[in-house]
Amino acid sequence: MKNRIYIKDLHEHIGTQVTLAGWVDVRRDHGKLTFIDLRDATGKVQMVALPKNEAAHEAAGTVRPEWVIKVVGEVKERPEKMVNPDLPNGDLEFVVTELEVLSPAESLPFDLDTDLNLDTLLDYRPLTLRRTRERAIFKVQAAIVDAYRTFLNNEGFTEFQAPKLIGADAEGSGEVFEVEYLYDRTAHLATSPQLYKQILVGVFERVFSIGNVYRAEKHATSRHLNEYTSLDVEVGFIDDHTDIMAIETRLLRFLCDQLRATCEAEFSICGAEVPVVPETIPVVKLREAQELIFQETGKDIREEPDLEPEDERWMCEWSSREHNSDFIFITHYPMSKRPFYTYEDEDDTGFSKSFDLLFRGIEITTGGQRRHTFESVVEGARQKGLDPENFAFYLQAFKYGMPPHGGWGMGLERLTARFLNIPNVKEAALFPRDINRIDTLFSSGSERDTEVTGQDDPGQ
Amino acid sequence: MKNRIYIKDLHEHIGTQVTLAGWVDVRRDHGKLTFIDLRDATGKVQMVALPKNEAAHEAAGTVRPEWVIKVVGEVKERPEKMVNPDLPNGDLEFVVTELEVLSPAESLPFDLDTDLNLDTLLDYRPLTLRRTRERAIFKVQAAIVDAYRTFLNNEGFTEFQAPKLIGADAEGSGEVFEVEYLYDRTAHLATSPQLYKQILVGVFERVFSIGNVYRAEKHATSRHLNEYTSLDVEVGFIDDHTDIMAIETRLLRFLCDQLRATCEAEFSICGAEVPVVPETIPVVKLREAQELIFQETGKDIREEPDLEPEDERWMCEWSSREHNSDFIFITHYPMSKRPFYTYEDEDDTGFSKSFDLLFRGIEITTGGQRRHTFESVVEGARQKGLDPENFAFYLQAFKYGMPPHGGWGMGLERLTARFLNIPNVKEAALFPRDINRIDTLFSSGSERDTEVTGQDDPGQ
Repeated sequence: MKNRIYIKDLHEHIGTQVTLAGWVDVRRDHGKLTFIDLRDATGKVQMVALPKNEAAHEAAGTVRPEWVIKVVGEVKERPEKMVNPDLPNGDLEFVVTELEVLSPAESLPFDLDTDLNLDTLLDYRPLTLRRTRERAIFKVQAAIVDAYRTFLNNEGFTEFQAPKLIGADAEGSGEVFEVEYLYDRTAHLATSPQLYKQILVGVFERVFSIGNVYRAEKHATSRHLNEYTSLDVEVGFIDDHTDIMAIETRLLRFLCDQLRATCEAEFSICGAEVPVVPETIPVVKLREAQELIFQETGKDIREEPDLEPEDERWMCEWSSREHNSDFIFITHYPMSKRPFYTYEDEDDTGFSKSFDLLFRGIEITTGGQRRHTFESVVEGARQKGLDPENFAFYLQAFKYGMPPHGGWGMGLERLTARFLNIPNVKEAALFPRDINRIDTLFSSGSERDTEVTGQDDPGQ
Repeated sequence: MKNRIYIKDLHEHIGTQVTLAGWVDVRRDHGKLTFIDLRDATGKVQMVALPKNEAAHEAAGTVRPEWVIKVVGEVKERPEKMVNPDLPNGDLEFVVTELEVLSPAESLPFDLDTDLNLDTLLDYRPLTLRRTRERAIFKVQAAIVDAYRTFLNNEGFTEFQAPKLIGADAEGSGEVFEVEYLYDRTAHLATSPQLYKQILVGVFERVFSIGNVYRAEKHATSRHLNEYTSLDVEVGFIDDHTDIMAIETRLLRFLCDQLRATCEAEFSICGAEVPVVPETIPVVKLREAQELIFQETGKDIREEPDLEPEDERWMCEWSSREHNSDFIFITHYPMSKRPFYTYEDEDDTGFSKSFDLLFRGIEITTGGQRRHTFESVVEGARQKGLDPENFAFYLQAFKYGMPPHGGWGMGLERLTARFLNIPNVKEAALFPRDINRIDTLFSSGSERDTEVTGQDDPGQ
């Protein structure tokens, strides 16, 4: 739009006439003066229309919240006693001389600034995403993705595009969605890019991908989505899983530094703080964690193969209290609970060189070392009762030489939610898909979302 | 892997002992000397095992192509008369003192360096992706994605994650895949993020997304995939479609500069050159293009609503000949051929403010200005016989104020293929999905891939 400047750049134009465009946040009429708070992608500014600019004043009197307008006006410094340090651009005034309505808007169905329940928030997503809080959430999400990629590119990783349409659900890792493929064939939606990223370790050694994955599970929790964005990494030529944990620790440090540098305002809007990532994140084996919980709380889960959500919360509180770390690695899950490609610890038979990373009460990453010889992968599949024939394509990578390797999967929406202390992961998904909703609620109300306790999926 | 260095860094270690790890490219036995070309993610180097290092020499004699090994050895400068300037690291020799096999490999089913037909190339993808040419293709693809993102981030765009699971195929833009969603509901795979990126213009003004999209079309051409990666952009507060074309021109200039700076070797491997993007890309209306083709070739397609592939090739040759540009914009497609959200040119009724960008003989982008008032969007849907009720969610954005906006969609695989002069787009997809194949060929050979002539899909 010709000559338009952004609100964030107003201070460079004091004393001049400029063009702005954006949405009306609010209009206030004070006697003969009409005030409009204008919002664009970069900020907000208060504008005033004076009766002497007749046409502009008249037009200003008609606008309502969310109308899209283009204005020409003069940028002035406010007299010192009028400065409002609590407002963005509170030291400026913008006197409107021309106002053009680009698009009117209907009356809003509710006040955007009030607390909204989750259904309203999602039913009106195209509107509610314009709220200050929602814009902050997805600005932070974009910043996470950007930092993730920057770090990995700098570390010699190659980004790849993983297919989401897959043939068989070879991995058997969870419920999968079926797709009617061409000529009446059945395909499936990938639950992770796991097998592809391993194949690509054989090509580029270090790879990452960012993309949607799918879980056809009928969850109704605050932690699960049926479609989410998986941040995946796979690294060749490792000594063991601790190499992967070391890379992830450095990545998290970089990520948090970036968020601190670029998203201070967004964290403040959400009432959250960027965590400090310690030089070394505490590491405990699952059995040690279970023993700790038993010793300190009396709850005996020492025979369980995994932690329940309340145990994860307890371990995070312990880590924060004892190690001043919001993060904690839990390692050595039993082989029986991990997928077929998981690497067994030679020195701790029955237990895997795998880890979960817990952050602020919840698992945000599942990772570990993988089997890398052909024989070991085939054996792993057989042990899980899977038919290696179904993996023929994937097995080629191992037939033709694979290095020791490992990696992780991380759910972007869950990570975003934890960073910003958002209780429900759906609020950290632009357009969440769940048992009740694909953009709009399904007709029946009988399966409405209710919080239930359940085990977490790895990686989501 | 402790102490391992990359092959690309060997020159920094001349005269010292270092650890390398990678794949055996080839082994050659010359009398008592065993030569191994070792490949890692960063390069290749010739190594020699001498009989005096007995264990290493013996181990070296057992390895074959694609075995994964770890070696310790000494980095030396070659005597001047032994320098081979045509080889990577041809000025170095690496004398192996220790060799450990990390993973053996089976004998290769074919020589990786020979010409392979497309089916072999894809049947053995985990292996054939390791070829020099294939690694170059997907390095360039990663560089395209990186440059695309860097440019847009620098221009104030916000990246977002578009959902791929959608409710109804509201847009009616092509054949869609059906997904069995939870509780026997039917969902679909998105053919583009179009409606979501428009919604997000109402939130962030300038947005982009990179992600898979799906076309359930039974194509059998060298130009189509059933799953591809769409590079999408949408921009608010434009004057008209030429603003979008201007942004795309600048993006292409940036992209080509980046490719020239970072992918010289990869382009050379593929026998391709990075194109020069002119300051201004030639622009002709569809009707002007048709008239030109009629005047110069006698072929009369002046009544057609679109260009056929051979016309696109002709226009690209013309652009190259007359304007020294590998790129050409074709604008003003008839409204009847464009989707419901397309903006009509007020000064050229019946024709749209839309464009295709042709590059080296093929359409790589479809874009244009969109309808932005509620009434206009509803009218557009009705004109196409679509029920606005199906768009209720999307229409919210327009109900609550949308600026003039537009954008484009660009197919990553097709773009990669054109940059590298690869004849079939499937070679530019890591794991292409088509009528015959999801990783492995479907059983029946009856629908084997054959080139047929057909119209292109926008954006793929």
